[in-house]
Amino acid sequence: MFTFFYAPGTCSLASHIALEEARAAYEARRVDFAASEQRAPAYLAVNPKGRVPALATPRGVLTETPAILAFVAQSFPEARLAPLDDAFAFAEMQAFNSYLCSTVHVAHAHGRRGSRWSDDADAIESMRRKVPETVGACLDLIETAMLRGPWVMGDAYSVADAYLFTVGRWMEGDGLDPARFPGIIAHRARMMERPAVARAMASEQ
Amino acid sequence: MFTFFYAPGTCSLASHIALEEARAAYEARRVDFAASEQRAPAYLAVNPKGRVPALATPRGVLTETPAILAFVAQSFPEARLAPLDDAFAFAEMQAFNSYLCSTVHVAHAHGRRGSRWSDDADAIESMRRKVPETVGACLDLIETAMLRGPWVMGDAYSVADAYLFTVGRWMEGDGLDPARFPGIIAHRARMMERPAVARAMASEQ
Repeated sequence: MFTFFYAPGTCSLASHIALEEARAAYEARRVDFAASEQRAPAYLAVNPKGRVPALATPRGVLTETPAILAFVAQSFPEARLAPLDDAFAFAEMQAFNSYLCSTVHVAHAHGRRGSRWSDDADAIESMRRKVPETVGACLDLIETAMLRGPWVMGDAYSVADAYLFTVGRWMEGDGLDPARFPGIIAHRARMMERPAVARAMASEQ
Repeated sequence: MFTFFYAPGTCSLASHIALEEARAAYEARRVDFAASEQRAPAYLAVNPKGRVPALATPRGVLTETPAILAFVAQSFPEARLAPLDDAFAFAEMQAFNSYLCSTVHVAHAHGRRGSRWSDDADAIESMRRKVPETVGACLDLIETAMLRGPWVMGDAYSVADAYLFTVGRWMEGDGLDPARFPGIIAHRARMMERPAVARAMASEQ
């Protein structure tokens, strides 16, 4: 039995979907960002980074989306959420997830969380203005060179699909026209048809 | 036989060390950042992201430090570079690596690569000024809550040690006093005693 800490609209949706795909036994606990609960002592005791997602397990707390995604895939092999018996294919999936967390999510974060990297209001506004360009370049690369179709890794669905779905949903809020990314939008539609995705999204509403 | 693309002073050192620890058969190929070789067509054909590291294998090219690190650990299990038979411990290691790539490396990058996120010179300078604060906060968390000792994950050496060693070496250039992080500095000294680390560093000089 796990306890899963999430906040709507954040990257935690990817792990939420993975838990649903795996039919894992877990309790979902919402962290109220509007009340800054992620920085309250009770939550910092769970995750000192003050971020979501966090997955409390009998052996301890796991953080960071790529780590949680691979953990769920490895812990529930019957759900076939990653190429577990092929180190190269597993590494390709991890490279995709790593790009989302270290480059795409970071580019997006400059639109809303620029204060992480500057104390100057003009600088923060300057970062916000560049988000359509930086996120757009990332999504172009995913669209043209990384998303194989029908799923991220090709024929086999994996946790990378849950992660792309989650991050890709931010494009409209980042000022991008979905028509520019037909492959990602078709992937989004395929994801919306999966019962696990519907369950995770309903649970967060 | 692999071909490993690296540049001195970058995060590619972590993968370089892992390859040496694994006694992998590889050819190291330096990408000349001073000549912008990472953005030349020949290198973009290897890695369209225009970054290092990249590891060309018989099955294709892998990118992203956490993915390459786990791939090397899984491909050379006899080198014991990760807890391969324990999904929870493996996830803890991956969470550490993910934090380095998505938060610590990103904080550092605002000192030298602010133009990724803003086109405004004042904004870029404003980001640069905040680097000691942001990187310092990351290293504080590693020092006090994440680095178990003697190695990152405790008694067992892993690829996370190569990655912390690599990123931790940037602290002086980021304006931080090493005396503030005695645990990380002691870890650095332990790393310097490893023959694989010496070989990787000598190869890059």
